[in-house]
Amino acid sequence: MAYELYYWPMIQGRGEFVRLALEEAGADYVDVARAPDNETGIRTMMRFMKEEGHRHPPFAPPFLKDGAVVVGQTAAILLYLGPRLGLVSDDEAETVWTHQIQLSIADVVAEAHDTHHPVGVGLYYEDQKPEAARRAEDFRKNRIPKFLGWFETILDRNPSGPSHLVGQSLTYADLSLFQLVDGLSYAFPKALIRALAKAPGVAALHAAVAERPRIRAYLDSPRRIPFNQEGIFRHYPELDG
Amino acid sequence: MAYELYYWPMIQGRGEFVRLALEEAGADYVDVARAPDNETGIRTMMRFMKEEGHRHPPFAPPFLKDGAVVVGQTAAILLYLGPRLGLVSDDEAETVWTHQIQLSIADVVAEAHDTHHPVGVGLYYEDQKPEAARRAEDFRKNRIPKFLGWFETILDRNPSGPSHLVGQSLTYADLSLFQLVDGLSYAFPKALIRALAKAPGVAALHAAVAERPRIRAYLDSPRRIPFNQEGIFRHYPELDG
Repeated sequence: MAYELYYWPMIQGRGEFVRLALEEAGADYVDVARAPDNETGIRTMMRFMKEEGHRHPPFAPPFLKDGAVVVGQTAAILLYLGPRLGLVSDDEAETVWTHQIQLSIADVVAEAHDTHHPVGVGLYYEDQKPEAARRAEDFRKNRIPKFLGWFETILDRNPSGPSHLVGQSLTYADLSLFQLVDGLSYAFPKALIRALAKAPGVAALHAAVAERPRIRAYLDSPRRIPFNQEGIFRHYPELDG
Repeated sequence: MAYELYYWPMIQGRGEFVRLALEEAGADYVDVARAPDNETGIRTMMRFMKEEGHRHPPFAPPFLKDGAVVVGQTAAILLYLGPRLGLVSDDEAETVWTHQIQLSIADVVAEAHDTHHPVGVGLYYEDQKPEAARRAEDFRKNRIPKFLGWFETILDRNPSGPSHLVGQSLTYADLSLFQLVDGLSYAFPKALIRALAKAPGVAALHAAVAERPRIRAYLDSPRRIPFNQEGIFRHYPELDG
């Protein structure tokens, strides 16, 4: 039975980390909220969230349905999918390590979002521009270099070599790091170029993932939603310093 | 060999979720940064983080050392400890569900932190008071009720009854929900009382966890660091509305 992914159909957002894993594995899946059209799809997703029969109701999209199993929270979805899609080692310590990296990627993603919405998600960016400028400066100058430096260290110390974050094979954490770098390159192109100059292993991993056949085909397809100003990664030139 | 927990010794913070799991299980552990005294302990922790030999360097505290295994990220530590401490089911779907709940608790914790530091972690609260007031209002009025409502729904729908979030036994998610409620009751006492009135199951779970013998003994011991204005949960009366 096909996996069913439920996520907002107009943005990459957090759902994209799941889409990339499914695409790389060539998995059979339906992006429910995009089928047959966005409006109908969103209604289907919202109805699912309100139904009272679910023992494991998701708090928010994205969530995955695999037969009777429903899993929410991006990192938990990848924890569930990883072994099924061959995107994580079956060694327990490596599994936990992969997940730890994923959680740190999730932290950067949340911080990237907060650069344009520091005061509140319910407000427009236009209502929090001075605060966003202050927060983005800290993010550019301190947080991006610190996080990328940590990923670079991990690659350096991988006994199997710097091609992957964990072991000698691709994991969902590699795909997620690709997506993080891709998002930051859209939102903060100037800051990211400076940071990547000190993290050549991260830059190489990003480039290598983009050239994997299934990922390349996905990125070139209409299934890949372009970055835009509704998602987590938004390009406001004034926030890029 | 005793588990070694590394975390800031002067706050509950994210380390507290791990401490509670270790305490409930009666596990043998050392709170490294508090021994033999805070200053020496912090130096030990910082030295560990800078050492170059670690294959799995933690990005930040808390992290756990179990022999040769090092695990960072609160939720990943609990993922690792859960089966070892008997604080999660051995059924895979229940394991992932428990973890999903933990990740949502982590989201609330991050949002609680951001109420007093919306613009930047590197700034003082005094330098972002107006922004904090705006963010805290949204947190009190919308986010706390929404999150507590979700936890209440989960308790309601647990086929084994509303005593626990998952199944019929205590999991680390129950301990973490206790800690979340405890922290919110310190930081936002007025808002929390209003929210708990609509989430009686959550209130009951919080009370029941506090009366578990090992947790009660821990809370009454000097090992439990009091809430204070350096931690994640801070009580600024002006933010409690």
